[in-house]
Amino acid sequence: MERKDIDIKDTWDLSTIYNDHKSFYHDLEKAKTLIDELVSYQGKICNTIDSFYNFLTTKDQIERLVNKLYCYAHLNCDVEPNNQEYQTMMAATIGVLEASSVKISFIDNEIIEAKEKVLEYIKDPKLQKYTYKINSLMLFKDHILPKEQEELLAKAESIADTSSQVFNALRLEYDDVLENGEMKTLNNATLNQFLKSKDDNVRKQAYTNFFKEYKKFENVFAQTLSGVMKKDVFYGNVRKFDNALEASVFDDDVPSELFFKVLDSANVKYRHLFHRYNCLKKELLNKEIIYNYDLNIPLVSSIKKEYTIDKCFEIINECLKPFGQDYLKIINKAREERWIDYYPTPGKRIGAYSSGSYDTNPFILMNFIGDYNSLSTLIHELGHSVHSYLSNQNQESVNASYRIFVAEVASTVNETLLINYMINNAKNDQEKAYFIYEQLENCVGLIFRQPMFADFEHKLHTMAENNEPLSSQVITDLYAKLNQEYYGDDVVMDELVGWSCYYVPHFYYNYYVYKYTLGMTVALAIVNRILKGDQNQIDNYLNFLKSGGSMAPVDLLKKAGVDPLDDQIYADAFNYFENLLNQFETIKKTKKDV
Amino acid sequence: MERKDIDIKDTWDLSTIYNDHKSFYHDLEKAKTLIDELVSYQGKICNTIDSFYNFLTTKDQIERLVNKLYCYAHLNCDVEPNNQEYQTMMAATIGVLEASSVKISFIDNEIIEAKEKVLEYIKDPKLQKYTYKINSLMLFKDHILPKEQEELLAKAESIADTSSQVFNALRLEYDDVLENGEMKTLNNATLNQFLKSKDDNVRKQAYTNFFKEYKKFENVFAQTLSGVMKKDVFYGNVRKFDNALEASVFDDDVPSELFFKVLDSANVKYRHLFHRYNCLKKELLNKEIIYNYDLNIPLVSSIKKEYTIDKCFEIINECLKPFGQDYLKIINKAREERWIDYYPTPGKRIGAYSSGSYDTNPFILMNFIGDYNSLSTLIHELGHSVHSYLSNQNQESVNASYRIFVAEVASTVNETLLINYMINNAKNDQEKAYFIYEQLENCVGLIFRQPMFADFEHKLHTMAENNEPLSSQVITDLYAKLNQEYYGDDVVMDELVGWSCYYVPHFYYNYYVYKYTLGMTVALAIVNRILKGDQNQIDNYLNFLKSGGSMAPVDLLKKAGVDPLDDQIYADAFNYFENLLNQFETIKKTKKDV
Repeated sequence: MERKDIDIKDTWDLSTIYNDHKSFYHDLEKAKTLIDELVSYQGKICNTIDSFYNFLTTKDQIERLVNKLYCYAHLNCDVEPNNQEYQTMMAATIGVLEASSVKISFIDNEIIEAKEKVLEYIKDPKLQKYTYKINSLMLFKDHILPKEQEELLAKAESIADTSSQVFNALRLEYDDVLENGEMKTLNNATLNQFLKSKDDNVRKQAYTNFFKEYKKFENVFAQTLSGVMKKDVFYGNVRKFDNALEASVFDDDVPSELFFKVLDSANVKYRHLFHRYNCLKKELLNKEIIYNYDLNIPLVSSIKKEYTIDKCFEIINECLKPFGQDYLKIINKAREERWIDYYPTPGKRIGAYSSGSYDTNPFILMNFIGDYNSLSTLIHELGHSVHSYLSNQNQESVNASYRIFVAEVASTVNETLLINYMINNAKNDQEKAYFIYEQLENCVGLIFRQPMFADFEHKLHTMAENNEPLSSQVITDLYAKLNQEYYGDDVVMDELVGWSCYYVPHFYYNYYVYKYTLGMTVALAIVNRILKGDQNQIDNYLNFLKSGGSMAPVDLLKKAGVDPLDDQIYADAFNYFENLLNQFETIKKTKKDV
Repeated sequence: MERKDIDIKDTWDLSTIYNDHKSFYHDLEKAKTLIDELVSYQGKICNTIDSFYNFLTTKDQIERLVNKLYCYAHLNCDVEPNNQEYQTMMAATIGVLEASSVKISFIDNEIIEAKEKVLEYIKDPKLQKYTYKINSLMLFKDHILPKEQEELLAKAESIADTSSQVFNALRLEYDDVLENGEMKTLNNATLNQFLKSKDDNVRKQAYTNFFKEYKKFENVFAQTLSGVMKKDVFYGNVRKFDNALEASVFDDDVPSELFFKVLDSANVKYRHLFHRYNCLKKELLNKEIIYNYDLNIPLVSSIKKEYTIDKCFEIINECLKPFGQDYLKIINKAREERWIDYYPTPGKRIGAYSSGSYDTNPFILMNFIGDYNSLSTLIHELGHSVHSYLSNQNQESVNASYRIFVAEVASTVNETLLINYMINNAKNDQEKAYFIYEQLENCVGLIFRQPMFADFEHKLHTMAENNEPLSSQVITDLYAKLNQEYYGDDVVMDELVGWSCYYVPHFYYNYYVYKYTLGMTVALAIVNRILKGDQNQIDNYLNFLKSGGSMAPVDLLKKAGVDPLDDQIYADAFNYFENLLNQFETIKKTKKDV
């Protein structure tokens, strides 16, 4: 369907951001003027409490403006990528950001140098809102470099991203897959469909045809992957952190202990549960040998349910009832005020996200096709949107935006409430088994697979730190070994498994993937308690949503009632998995028609 | 033929470098110890004339040792790439270099800071040999950064080379070419053969199949090419040069005026000669439309002459007679003392080079197959080797190694003397036409094509400096436009011509290609005068060969009797081309059987 043929109520309303292009460019000019004004504070930011206050106010204004500009440009680009007017807006916004980055590299230094004065200033009521931000900056004292070196580092940004840029630009083509006598296209989107095939040859072919291309270009991928590791190590080193991991967790304001706790839980303490699941798969699929590319064969046949948008909102309202009327009002506001762009149209960005800025409502991009996955994605993105909405409503702009660390909690809580609702309201055993299976697969991805990724990237970083050469042989041998340990002895690895690491974009994100696991773990713990009717947990959770980024992630999560450093939440999360697995095994083994 | 089956006298003798592996590792350890010793000078290099002298002596010793180690490892690796012992030696040598780079980043600063003292010190006879090097370093005063920033820059080296590394790792595969009913392999090596085919379809197919792959991966190449431009701009900028070009010519110790003089001569003043040549090709090939991929169709059929190694030395001795007995003695020493590894063997590095170090003789790697090209390559590489040998004999180690800028002169002078000899001694018109044609093609590559490359890379650098986005569209449009101007109106560009820039490795070498043109121009001027019997020119030239890198390239060239800033040498070089073209046209138009 063309964009113009879509019912307007099913598209997002971006005119609430800017009514016309003139207003966009007016704000862009304003941002440039304010940046020049900001630069004029150089050398006198902290002279007086007034100069400090005015400086911060100007900085806030710029950030809000630039975020709003970026929001408008990127949302428009994502639905109309061929409209050159929006591309120009995007390039203009990024241009302003890039041009300012070296110019304003003096700021942090100047504030840190005036530490004592500044800590006095922020006791003043009108400056109190900056407390968390300024205190965080002061912690950076040992890692910030003198002004000239900071300027050098800012300039080095122009050459630091080549690895990621090349990785993103490298698009491979794959040989077709022969299925039912027909040659079918293999690509990122169809790979998973082929891996669900019941035909052994189709799965093996798809896996081979896909990953042999990564092997073909292995020397390029080894360069980009080792390049990004060296980049992380470089920044960690010049900023005087013990290693790249310490630099990354410092940035997130969490202790590195947390990283190892996540890894230890999934990769050591509870991995036997994943091995048990694989073993059950082998049994249920009735195979003598099970390969890693066999693990996606569905254990329950798919249910053909269709959901209209209205039906989705009906179910979503039902699932999220425990959060009370105020929460549900926001959900319905999102529908009524057209925050959401539902349907796929030619050229529209694939996938889904929730985005926005402090001075706009949240926006959701969907590629809604009416299946369960569309429903689940919608409630997930609404989780982000409500989180943003409540943060923006309750926090000053400086404290509103939250880190990825806590972001996934709000979305995953919603998604988990939905699937629990579906499991509990299943019409029959087959439907119940289907939803349990969906959730088991979902959990595997988040609480088992991501920690293996994290382990791999940590080992690569460590090798880069020790100047060990990261040849493709070293990388793929390591990845093959970790996969064997991960899947367990019951699963036989395909000879290409080592090269499958080259497909994963997340290794270019500097210790990102374990945050998924943490989000899921925390969400499972929260849902568990909510479903037990714990009203205190609900209140804590809603307060957490309203807190935005006003404190450290660990403190925010504690506010939500869950301490990520407490072993109990890992026990709860993996327990949840084990319970699902028990239920699933029982149904599959006792109800022969499922 | 396997390596073991080759007559030992036709392989190089590397035992003159190290007799056994133990001696190699002994020197490696010695180098490490000396590096630690060097680091211990930190803060006191220039305290006294003795500390300064001892410091420089240690530094010289390290450089000589490391060069010798590297020489041994890389020569062995190049003929026996699968021998892991040599790979380990190579990695160990590079490891020592990399590990020391940050540790010794203090040196230049410390010497520059003590400028006045140091300039006094080098008046002392035992330190006079450092005059050129120290004076050059002092010129760097405005571009060196404080110690901490230099250390930061040294660390950034670990991330600066990703673009080149990815470019080198990206190996493409090409569709076969149908020739005479047979599918034939297309690759880097066979492309030029196909482009010489008389069959229109074969040339078009080869060109299309080759460059469509570059188009397929255009976004990757655009990233690596713009990445390397940004890198050059970054270093130019942080080192306070006006632009990347100024940084590059500073490094070579030449004025940027020289760069523009080369470009202006080839791309403006004398380009009509190239257009005339293309026009003649169109006429001689009797084509209504001539495409850019038609220009390699031979205008003279190849002569089937075979040259044994002994025959080659006979001819080489004849050609180089003007240089006198001392020069010829070195040539024959190279043969007798086994400096040369002649024959191709499985796995041996392709192409040819002359290499070596101060404490070894020069070594030549060949892939000799007995045709004219083998002979020409041999005399070319011998030019480098004699240059190195004479430099090492006549200069202290600190002044022995010369820059690429002057390196190509010695080799090209020899090559040009050879082809003149072949033209003058041709047995018939066909042979004469063949050698003239060879030399015309050779000149086109060096004095016309490289300056177009240089213009292109300069424009890319300039765009990167202005933060203009270097998308593949921008890059390929620019390259297509320059090619049309370059070939002239008589030649029609294939639609893929814009993407052919992605094939050229030299754009990753930071203003490298114009040095080829300069080398050729200077060589043609020198040969012209030598052939006129100018004994003074011969003496100047031999003195130049003995001068190594003891002064600035322009001064060295002036010593050789040619001022690269003088318009006359360009006039001489392009005149030489025009004369050849006249001779060629006359033969082709008057002798119908050629």
